[in-house]
Amino acid sequence: MIEAAQLVDLQTKVTSLIEHRDFAQIRQVLETLAPPDVAEIIEELGQEHEAVLFRLLPKEKAVEVFEHLPIENQESLMFGLADKDAAAILDEMSPDDRTAFLEELPGKVTRRLMNLLSADERHIAIQLLGYPEDSIGRLMTPDYVAIKTSWTVAQALGHIRIYGHDSETLNVLYVVEKGGRLIDDIRVREILLASPDALVADLMDHHFVALKASDDQEAAVTAFLRHDRSVLPVTDSSGILLGIVTADDILDVAEEEATEDIQKLGGVSALEEPYLTIGFFKIIRKRSFWLIFLFFGQMLTATAMGFFQEELEKALVLALFVPLIISSGGNTGSQAATLIIRALTIGEISLGDWWRVMRREIFSGLFIGGMLGTLGFLRIMIAQSLTGVYGPHWVFVGVTIAFSLVGVVMWGTLSGSLLPFLLKRFGLDPATSSAPLVATLVDVTGLLIYFSVASVVLKGTLL
Amino acid sequence: MIEAAQLVDLQTKVTSLIEHRDFAQIRQVLETLAPPDVAEIIEELGQEHEAVLFRLLPKEKAVEVFEHLPIENQESLMFGLADKDAAAILDEMSPDDRTAFLEELPGKVTRRLMNLLSADERHIAIQLLGYPEDSIGRLMTPDYVAIKTSWTVAQALGHIRIYGHDSETLNVLYVVEKGGRLIDDIRVREILLASPDALVADLMDHHFVALKASDDQEAAVTAFLRHDRSVLPVTDSSGILLGIVTADDILDVAEEEATEDIQKLGGVSALEEPYLTIGFFKIIRKRSFWLIFLFFGQMLTATAMGFFQEELEKALVLALFVPLIISSGGNTGSQAATLIIRALTIGEISLGDWWRVMRREIFSGLFIGGMLGTLGFLRIMIAQSLTGVYGPHWVFVGVTIAFSLVGVVMWGTLSGSLLPFLLKRFGLDPATSSAPLVATLVDVTGLLIYFSVASVVLKGTLL
Repeated sequence: MIEAAQLVDLQTKVTSLIEHRDFAQIRQVLETLAPPDVAEIIEELGQEHEAVLFRLLPKEKAVEVFEHLPIENQESLMFGLADKDAAAILDEMSPDDRTAFLEELPGKVTRRLMNLLSADERHIAIQLLGYPEDSIGRLMTPDYVAIKTSWTVAQALGHIRIYGHDSETLNVLYVVEKGGRLIDDIRVREILLASPDALVADLMDHHFVALKASDDQEAAVTAFLRHDRSVLPVTDSSGILLGIVTADDILDVAEEEATEDIQKLGGVSALEEPYLTIGFFKIIRKRSFWLIFLFFGQMLTATAMGFFQEELEKALVLALFVPLIISSGGNTGSQAATLIIRALTIGEISLGDWWRVMRREIFSGLFIGGMLGTLGFLRIMIAQSLTGVYGPHWVFVGVTIAFSLVGVVMWGTLSGSLLPFLLKRFGLDPATSSAPLVATLVDVTGLLIYFSVASVVLKGTLL
Repeated sequence: MIEAAQLVDLQTKVTSLIEHRDFAQIRQVLETLAPPDVAEIIEELGQEHEAVLFRLLPKEKAVEVFEHLPIENQESLMFGLADKDAAAILDEMSPDDRTAFLEELPGKVTRRLMNLLSADERHIAIQLLGYPEDSIGRLMTPDYVAIKTSWTVAQALGHIRIYGHDSETLNVLYVVEKGGRLIDDIRVREILLASPDALVADLMDHHFVALKASDDQEAAVTAFLRHDRSVLPVTDSSGILLGIVTADDILDVAEEEATEDIQKLGGVSALEEPYLTIGFFKIIRKRSFWLIFLFFGQMLTATAMGFFQEELEKALVLALFVPLIISSGGNTGSQAATLIIRALTIGEISLGDWWRVMRREIFSGLFIGGMLGTLGFLRIMIAQSLTGVYGPHWVFVGVTIAFSLVGVVMWGTLSGSLLPFLLKRFGLDPATSSAPLVATLVDVTGLLIYFSVASVVLKGTLL
């Protein structure tokens, strides 16, 4: 891998070489670079230069570089190249990368490009595109090696020599019975180490893990994490082997999902595009949806405060602590929500654990609320002894703040931890109960708790 | 994989079988289960039952099950088993899993267990443990196959047959020169497909990607994401091949890192243990550290409000909108921080982009602030026309709220997006600028913005 600084140098150098039409020199530079690095250089070139550079790459490398480019560059390159070149690149791409590329394009463009594919490759692409977005089917590549029980090891090796060339990974071979049903997986090492006369059947243990093509990609991430494999087979619902999925594609999925979850937790709809390249109004739309929704929720705080206007007039000191009280509830609430949402996502807890979680959160809330309440009381005690600002009834003010903090923090942890369970229970994504959503919810109810405590504690003194 | 409901059934069944000492039946049940499923059953059994069940497993499966167990069960099992059994399991574990296990244990225990290892295996474990925690060195396994340039394909295949047995993956072979320096990687498929008389040198392209053992594991995640590989070699700083890292281990790292980032964003120190098994006081400590820190920050809101007591007495209506104003700033701030932190983590933006980001955030803040400000003004206008609650000067109140919202939201997006850059600039983890931290920061400054706007707009009417 090359450093960021080197990359900038290379980009400047290549641009100047293109402008001077020094193609031999460019070829030399490109030869020393790995495909992802070439892709990064192309990304930064203008549309007219990128096609020039791309044509200078040897065909096999061009395909690899293409697979590493972001969708916008892939699209503009495809239309910059003559149909013949475009078809060659599409044909050579690995089926899963090609699917990812085609599915990003508008339907009309996809159809045009599909027509450039050879009949065989088109057949594969159509098949992969048939699975719903975010399904395992979209991730799989049909380039695996399947063998039969009745074969000898020598036959299996011969088969690998012929058909292994297209195979995405040769680590594992798949044993299928007549009709294509998957019945076992065998590591290539076992074939390599066995005697040539041994039967495939003798090497089988009939234990294998398979994914379903129609399942969500999250299921694939879970399965890879659980079984520590570098590749897993994919079958349809009747167990027919359709393709394989490799761990590196799963890593991409896991990173994308973590990004989406983090964005949702932060109160943004998932961007689905890089921060710097997403359009200004698109990102504004994704951000303001939640902000406006939350703003309507927050308006209730003004309404709630309005109810207690009389109390505020009598004891203005109550107003001073409003931000402290509601933010403490909001912070503990977002914290609890974050912990629970992640634990639900990675399967550490499931819906059935809600009661264990709630019990735990009640005690956590009580404990943390007790600590913050004590600190709040001390804060008032110290300020009082220094300045006398809270008047003769300062103890009651302190007690109000302390008890409100206990109540608000407990309410924060409880609602923050239960909301994700509720959302999941109703089939929604728990990550929707973002930190800002929980904070807003707790703000409104926190005010009610605060003024209720105040009206009890301060009755007869300030109120 | 088996379903959660099935698992509970199996656990009950196995417990009853152990109590009835029906070992034959247990063996039968265990035979049908994959190692991760057996591990899940063992997790739920008591300490005395777990050892019984474990001894009933065939040795090879026992090792695989052991690797799937959480550290607490591994530890209790190790001490429940006789030294001989324990040594056998340690010897058979794959080096990277063994390292993960040993590094979780207290130093004294690690040393005792190390003594159980065979000399060769101990050598490997000590070597792997020598790398700092979270370095790539800890992830690698030395079970790779290395070949020499001068060999023929037939010699290489013979070498694989002898040394391939221990190899974690056979997908890729590594070409080293005398002294052990890595000079190329060759896919096993190329060896399989080549003529037996061809030289390894003829198959080489001298292009390879390698990781450094002392680098942070995050670098490995980035490299795997970038190069779409299922396995990458690891070298020391002088390029000597030390081992390999496989994509499935990287997937584990990526998931753990996402969990840590999410927890930090939620304002919790990274738990590093599952939510349900971490001790009550440990989780309280991890949670309350930030909450107490933030609480001290929030106390400044009470101080700030105290400064404006006079204004509040004259225009109590200002108090009613305090929660709305500060939360709007907090929400936009956490949103901006979340977006920027994630983009920094996955490398979409780097430190040098701070000015592009800031420019973008200023406009976003202005736009979103404008929307929320308009909504806030409408809210006051509608309430006024229905109830007349804001008195004759309602327009000034509305304007105060609207302008404050624009200011606070702009300030929120700006500080939320710049704080991660600042932290990263000073070598800290950007994720430390959690949503609650940004919210607290914006709360305090938001109050100052609000009351400053009010004192200008309301001068001569309410103030």
